[in-house]
Amino acid sequence: MNYYSIATMRDSMPFGSEYEAFQNASTLGFFSSTQALADYAQLITDLKRNLSAENCPTIAVGGSYGGMLASWFRLKYPHISCGALASSAPILYFDDITPQNGYPVVVTKDFRDTSESCYNTIRQSWSEIDRVAAEPNGLSKLSQIFATCLPLNSSEELKSTLEVLFWVSAQYDNPPDNPVENLCNAIDRAAEGTDILGKIAAGLNASIGPPCHDMFDLKPSNKDGWTWQTCTEMVIPIGNGDNDTMFQPSPFDLNNFTRTCEGLFGVTPRPHWITTEFGGHDIKSVLGNFASNIIFSNGLRDPYSAGGVLQNISDTVLAVYTEKGAHCLDLLTPMASDPDWLVSQRDTEIKIIQGWIAEYRATRAS
Amino acid sequence: MNYYSIATMRDSMPFGSEYEAFQNASTLGFFSSTQALADYAQLITDLKRNLSAENCPTIAVGGSYGGMLASWFRLKYPHISCGALASSAPILYFDDITPQNGYPVVVTKDFRDTSESCYNTIRQSWSEIDRVAAEPNGLSKLSQIFATCLPLNSSEELKSTLEVLFWVSAQYDNPPDNPVENLCNAIDRAAEGTDILGKIAAGLNASIGPPCHDMFDLKPSNKDGWTWQTCTEMVIPIGNGDNDTMFQPSPFDLNNFTRTCEGLFGVTPRPHWITTEFGGHDIKSVLGNFASNIIFSNGLRDPYSAGGVLQNISDTVLAVYTEKGAHCLDLLTPMASDPDWLVSQRDTEIKIIQGWIAEYRATRAS
Repeated sequence: MNYYSIATMRDSMPFGSEYEAFQNASTLGFFSSTQALADYAQLITDLKRNLSAENCPTIAVGGSYGGMLASWFRLKYPHISCGALASSAPILYFDDITPQNGYPVVVTKDFRDTSESCYNTIRQSWSEIDRVAAEPNGLSKLSQIFATCLPLNSSEELKSTLEVLFWVSAQYDNPPDNPVENLCNAIDRAAEGTDILGKIAAGLNASIGPPCHDMFDLKPSNKDGWTWQTCTEMVIPIGNGDNDTMFQPSPFDLNNFTRTCEGLFGVTPRPHWITTEFGGHDIKSVLGNFASNIIFSNGLRDPYSAGGVLQNISDTVLAVYTEKGAHCLDLLTPMASDPDWLVSQRDTEIKIIQGWIAEYRATRAS
Repeated sequence: MNYYSIATMRDSMPFGSEYEAFQNASTLGFFSSTQALADYAQLITDLKRNLSAENCPTIAVGGSYGGMLASWFRLKYPHISCGALASSAPILYFDDITPQNGYPVVVTKDFRDTSESCYNTIRQSWSEIDRVAAEPNGLSKLSQIFATCLPLNSSEELKSTLEVLFWVSAQYDNPPDNPVENLCNAIDRAAEGTDILGKIAAGLNASIGPPCHDMFDLKPSNKDGWTWQTCTEMVIPIGNGDNDTMFQPSPFDLNNFTRTCEGLFGVTPRPHWITTEFGGHDIKSVLGNFASNIIFSNGLRDPYSAGGVLQNISDTVLAVYTEKGAHCLDLLTPMASDPDWLVSQRDTEIKIIQGWIAEYRATRAS
């Protein structure tokens, strides 16, 4: 059982309870990608044995972190899965392989492609927030403009809430809701004479809804599984450069990050571990020479696609992407309203996987 | 650092001391093949970085368990080593891939090929020991015949000491000492009229030397690293069948073995784990499709060769073996007295490895 199952499968908790498992690093220590892969190997092998289905082909499927695991599982356990569909899997967003601003650059492009004026408004809003915050009663003025449920304690609260709003809107910029367009429409169509902050507030309102807006609590928490993973091995260095995004500069600072993790969990992040364990700088050589039957699927509106595999590596390690798709979109349940390009992306993936299964069966039969 | 380094590298002990590390399963838990491979990956990567030798080719080399690790390292970390020399690596001696009697059958063949009469004497000796042991004062009679340093407590002590003597003689049946021939010469050339037990005692004397013979303590110990490994994942099921070896029947009994391990360490062996982690039943498919640049070297007098890879799997996963060689012989320092076939085995291995390195350099240069 991996840690993701803890919350739902109370009977098979490895350490008694989620609460106990999160107590300290000695139980959390098993919460790693390597352990997850080994658990999958054990689980699939046992399941197939118990179901007398030893010859049944197995395909690893996952999105985001799960997509990384799917591709790594095929790489490390080719005898257990005959293929992998790795959706929105930023396996190259480690070390210095992908530029740190990869993610916010795509967010920025998503907004700019949707509306140049929306992009400009957002870009200008940060210094405007800083300017107002510095006024007497500035924070309460900002609280009023943005209709915060509780009075703001700092302008950072507001800025990071807005940043996450833009990040999430871009990451899940899915049809038919198209949150970036929705947000930009509200910003662009604010009443004549509305100032920058009023426009941004209109965007927030359109995204979150009235009557008031909770500020996101962005502080990393020692009760959060993903924080544990980023504090150990999944160190994805995302940062805004000086003038390359619509956000304020905030480069990824490993020293700061390390101090935070040491404070939260008493562990020191290992930023080079993922590339050591799975390769990275030479991923094309690793995947080209030692892997087969992997689909890396991406939507280019997904900011994580910046760290994804977007080129075919070999005849059987394939990149399937769409211009318009966002994060893990191909894995969602098909809907009647799905656009053609999404239907087609899923069909392509299914056909490739059917080919793997046919080949697997042919090999077993011969 | 892996556990093997504990005894020698006191400055880098992961758990304070060997004594502390062996206290219980929570520290011993890191003593696993998977952890060893991950440690190698980290160590090699760091070493290369620190020495500014990132482009230096790395070859994994190991014998016996270390040979298994070498081949598995190439399988799981192809981006870190460009090839592996796996000497006497019985990677197929898990689950039911290799017959349980594989090892003692080779021991038997080694003795029979050396001397039919020696083989017959050994084969007959077990029931003779049992017969004498059952007599009044039988044990003290056996103690006298075999010149044991301490009086025997049971005939099992004697029989298992002799069994291990034959095992070890076959496993390390190396020139120029040729322990099997040495042992059989003593058995065969005992003075006219010497009975079976007297002949075996002469063999023991020739192998161990006078004046008296300690009985091996074969009991599994909770202070022994290899016992921990066999009690967790390295479950190699070696057993004597009914009439197929020169030994008394003693099939591998997983239930007994499990009880022993639970008593020693409080852990339950996982006999299917190695094949789950590294493949096994379909090893040809795994190594053929997902590996390259591995030499499996063996000497066919080595009883562990029964679980080794003795066929070429592909153009670059190669079996290099000799009829006469024994356990890990090719890894020993060359000596002037080495026979031609051993010199030739090493030359073949070196030439293959030189080819890997040349190819690695050519790829980097292009």
